[in-house]
This record gives sequence, structure tokens and C-alpha cells, in this order.
Amino acid sequence: MTINYPKGSKLQALTSFDDKNFKKKSYANRGMSFEEEINQSNLYYLTKEKAVIHKKPTPIQIVKVHYPKRSAAMITEAYFKESSTTDYNGIYRGRYIDFEAKETKNKTSFPLNNFHEHQISHMKLCLKQGGIIFILIRFSSLQEIFYLPAEVVIDFWDNQENGKRKSIPYQTIKERGFLIETSLFPQIPYLEVIDKFILKGDSEL
Amino acid sequence: MTINYPKGSKLQALTSFDDKNFKKKSYANRGMSFEEEINQSNLYYLTKEKAVIHKKPTPIQIVKVHYPKRSAAMITEAYFKESSTTDYNGIYRGRYIDFEAKETKNKTSFPLNNFHEHQISHMKLCLKQGGIIFILIRFSSLQEIFYLPAEVVIDFWDNQENGKRKSIPYQTIKERGFLIETSLFPQIPYLEVIDKFILKGDSEL
Repeated sequence: MTINYPKGSKLQALTSFDDKNFKKKSYANRGMSFEEEINQSNLYYLTKEKAVIHKKPTPIQIVKVHYPKRSAAMITEAYFKESSTTDYNGIYRGRYIDFEAKETKNKTSFPLNNFHEHQISHMKLCLKQGGIIFILIRFSSLQEIFYLPAEVVIDFWDNQENGKRKSIPYQTIKERGFLIETSLFPQIPYLEVIDKFILKGDSEL
Repeated sequence: MTINYPKGSKLQALTSFDDKNFKKKSYANRGMSFEEEINQSNLYYLTKEKAVIHKKPTPIQIVKVHYPKRSAAMITEAYFKESSTTDYNGIYRGRYIDFEAKETKNKTSFPLNNFHEHQISHMKLCLKQGGIIFILIRFSSLQEIFYLPAEVVIDFWDNQENGKRKSIPYQTIKERGFLIETSLFPQIPYLEVIDKFILKGDSEL
């Protein structure tokens, strides 16, 4: 299917991330943030018609809007709101996909204070509905990215309330998660993990 | 599952719509916008653990942010951006759900200029992946709400480029769509349409 957009290029129209940074950095492929790399991977999957997965816009509470006569409405007072869901969702091979991306400089564990209670609740509810729910964790110091099933995060989250540890050990993530080998296209090929380990022989669609 | 949120009530934490209006209007159930009614229906489905469907936040291009010392960051210049997807998505009975809500005062047809090219592209891509994709249309003058499968919108959209009509006749929507009888809880029980006509005997999950 050819996708034609009224304004801008196909790439620009499909991305929700900062177009300026995208253009500047895509050549050198350096200094790109984890979020940008995931967005580019999603864009790759989208243009190849492999999956439709988008980052949700940042939730913002708008307080004041100025409407100039001959130009676009300008928001002059607004505040960041806490999201009640995870950042990314969409569809792949007929299945609902939902995940959160997190980064840590820590080398030995992943601190759970990276999550909010309602994000955990959201993941639990989505799991109950039969979705494929996970976290992409980048250990920036180790330069390693893992696909970690949401079940593991939920296990540790629910246990910490009983006074147990407030982080997931690196060793656990290595054992119960899946290391993602980065590539050029897409940079973070996380759908391969779903193919190999989550859906396996499932040939639906 | 009990859902506990650190701040505010369960209802507030789960909604993305204006809490003030919600509180004011929920008693009288009058003057509520189509969007608010859909959000409330989604909230009902969420708290009943029937489905996890959210409205995406409005995409905003942030230009300037002010960081006062002792209070929250304030956005002082920002602009509305066009969304590259539909407004609502989530999961129900293991299936990916994706829809757009539109309202018209028109009585005899639904004008297609309510859509953008990239919304149609998004719906096509999601259909290819096996999602349940549709439009909720309210004919405000007729006080009727229809569930219209995305395929119908796409049919008419693709044909208009060949010089054909630029709207979907009311009669077509009545024939190929499904009238939704509004109720109290939820106000717009659109998942019933999916149960009765889309998934039918499908007992997955």
C-alpha cells in the first residue's frame, strides 16, 4: 500500500518525535536517545507493514490558549501530567502490543522506582485481556537492551510491598528477559523476540 | 484486582479528560460531550475489567518550557499538532481495538472531510494486522450513534478520489453500520456491537 500524506514526507507524517532531531541525527546514528531509537524502529516496522506501534503523545494539561487572528492557536500555559498508561502500544500479527521503555545507568539492577503504581495496574489489566506486555530496558553503562516480560516486573513490584527488594537484579533480567542485539534496520528489533519466544509457532495472521 | 493510585481517586487517575467537567456534569448527565461519554464508557469498561481502552493525549508541539525553582515546570509556548493515528485504542477479549469518534449535525450523510489521509492510512494498516477498527459516529440532530466498520469509511474514501461523492449517505451507515442504544452504564455500550456482530461466537479468552 502506498501511503500519501498531504503535508511533509512520509517519514515526517508518521513520527511523533522531534523531526528536527530526527533529521539531524539519522545520518550519523549517534547521540540518538533510547526513545528516538525505539521510535525509528517503530517507523521501520510501520513502513514495512510489519506492525503498527506508536508512542503516545505526552499528556498535557492545557490551562490557557491564545487564539491570534491569522495564525495557529498558541498554548500559553500548560503543565505535564502523569500518564495513566504505558508509553507505547499497537498491533502486531493480530495481537495487542503494549510496552514501556526505561533506561538506567545502574549496572547490577533495575530500580523499580522507574515505575508508577498505575503503570503496573495498566500492565496487569492488559495481561488479563491477553495482550503482549513488556518493558524494554536499556542498561546504558553496559550498552545492553533487554526485552523483559511485564510478568517479571509485576512479580517484583508486588513483592516489594511486603518489604522485599526495591529493584530487579541484573541477573534476573538476564535469565527471565531476552537480550536484544541491535542492528541497523531496525535499530532495536524487539519484534524478533516476540516471534522467537512469545508467539513461537503461532501462525495467526 | 484492586487499583490503588497514589494521587486522587481511582476515577480521576484513570481518566484523561477534564476532571472538573466530569465531576460537575456526571450527576445531571447532561451537556456531556460525545468525547466525555465515550471516555466515561471506557472508564466503566476499565473498572469492570472488561476492556482496556484509552483516548490518546492530544499531540502537542512544545516550544518553550519555564522551570520555576519550587514548582512544576510550566509550558509557556506550545502548539496543537495533527495526530497521525486515531484517537482511541486498546484491547478487548485479546483483540486490538482502534477507533475514531466523530460527530455531525448533518442529517442525511456523514461528510468525509472529517478525516485526514493519515487517519485512513492508519486504519488500513491496522486492519491488515487483524485489528477491530471502526468509527463511532453521532448524528447529533438525530440523536443517533452508530458503530461503523472502518472498511465502509475506507470504501467511500478511496472512491471519492475517483470523483465520486464526498460523504457517506445516512442510509449506507444505517445499513452497513450498527445503531448503538445508549444506556446509563456505560453510556455508549459499543463493545456490545463487537460481541454480537464482530466476534460473535469467537470465544478466544
